[in-house]
Amino acid sequence: MDSRPIGIFDSGIGGLTVLKEVIRLLPGEDIIYLGDMARLPYGTKSRETVIKYALENAHFLIKQEIKLLVVACNTASSVSLSVLRDELSIPVVGVIEAGARAAVKATLNGRVGIIGTRTTIHSGAYKKAITGINPHIKVIEQACPLFVPLVEEGWTEDDVTVQVAKRYLVFLKDARIDTLVLGCTHYPLLKKVIQSAMGDEVRLIDSAEETAREVEGVLQGGHLLCKNRSKRGIRRFFVTDDPERFSEQGSLFLGEEIKEIQKIWIG
Amino acid sequence: MDSRPIGIFDSGIGGLTVLKEVIRLLPGEDIIYLGDMARLPYGTKSRETVIKYALENAHFLIKQEIKLLVVACNTASSVSLSVLRDELSIPVVGVIEAGARAAVKATLNGRVGIIGTRTTIHSGAYKKAITGINPHIKVIEQACPLFVPLVEEGWTEDDVTVQVAKRYLVFLKDARIDTLVLGCTHYPLLKKVIQSAMGDEVRLIDSAEETAREVEGVLQGGHLLCKNRSKRGIRRFFVTDDPERFSEQGSLFLGEEIKEIQKIWIG
Repeated sequence: MDSRPIGIFDSGIGGLTVLKEVIRLLPGEDIIYLGDMARLPYGTKSRETVIKYALENAHFLIKQEIKLLVVACNTASSVSLSVLRDELSIPVVGVIEAGARAAVKATLNGRVGIIGTRTTIHSGAYKKAITGINPHIKVIEQACPLFVPLVEEGWTEDDVTVQVAKRYLVFLKDARIDTLVLGCTHYPLLKKVIQSAMGDEVRLIDSAEETAREVEGVLQGGHLLCKNRSKRGIRRFFVTDDPERFSEQGSLFLGEEIKEIQKIWIG
Repeated sequence: MDSRPIGIFDSGIGGLTVLKEVIRLLPGEDIIYLGDMARLPYGTKSRETVIKYALENAHFLIKQEIKLLVVACNTASSVSLSVLRDELSIPVVGVIEAGARAAVKATLNGRVGIIGTRTTIHSGAYKKAITGINPHIKVIEQACPLFVPLVEEGWTEDDVTVQVAKRYLVFLKDARIDTLVLGCTHYPLLKKVIQSAMGDEVRLIDSAEETAREVEGVLQGGHLLCKNRSKRGIRRFFVTDDPERFSEQGSLFLGEEIKEIQKIWIG
């Protein structure tokens, strides 16, 4: 039994969808969340730069004495997970493997689509993870660079967003996928628009839930769960840019008010 | 006469529109351009963070022994110009004052619109600069956060962009402005769409040209122009992220191929 906190980082607020699921599954755990807003977005930056940012974020959280690190950002997971695992002595959980497993379980026709940022798609991490589990699955990928700014503008059900989604997704629709991985933590907020563009028969995979289950499994396996599971865990938030903006936008992702946000510099 | 280079920085490629005008006006000058792509965009970040980035960029260029600094980014100009002028011993030219002067000259009905990033608009820097020249001018401001990602996606004449522009600009159109300042170096690439949304009678102000004229004036006034004006100046490029992406996207802004790009870390 281990009372140290879980550490979670993302480039900004998107990872709060993962935090939400971790809280739902493990309400007694203390959690430290880091949103690297001063350098967001990660999805347009190079592999090398995202790895540097991921390492800096991880080292900040390690100093807070976390027992497990969750990389709650698809871009960072797609390029930095193996580096982080080599570098750190605590377990590291990303969102890619969880999403890949869920997709493999869900598909019936063996045709899975992946949408994500440019860097995530370019990394091929989802394709690798899925074909690693089942090499017969056909994986079709599509970068959707405008989805993040559209979510951040709050246009989650807007006509413009509907059009952009149709444009990006026509290729996946034509490829007759039956399962689509939302490979960016912002995308669950566009579920309605994406589902309508793809049609009801396509199953959308949001890796937040599956990631939380992996966190629980790893903690259980390593005897790292907290002792007192009936108490409500303490949640602390660190951001590298404006806490007010994080609080405002973040509540939309977390589904509850965010308090106790501390501003720090990283890098 | 001074043979040291001119230093220009921007958060990425947008400032290349300013570089282009400086080259046109002062072809003999050596120029060093810094694109801080690893931390872009600036327009969604807080005032405090943008000032930190601007200072770090400036100090990098100062080490390259520049004779004058051009802040070729509206967001950085809007929040960091006075700090940079206090901190540095060389002249500093921003894009806001130049754009403001051009707008004051252009308006006939005394109603000027400003469009820019969230941070630029929030700073009120254009309003301050314009009413500082002529307090009777009515300034109407509008943030257009999706314009930068739309330009970076290459959708500069797309139907989606036309719709987004209409949505953002309807308020300025209703306010009967006769002059509109393109208060972000990405926006000149949307000139056609913006002009069509505003109507032909509205004059668009692109501050790149005016900024280049200010650079020339300051160099002349300080006896800082280079000696040999008939030679073609040397241009060097530094970026904080992927040089390849900078080269690809940047040629669209500069209108010529970009060679000799060096990757550096800042911060």
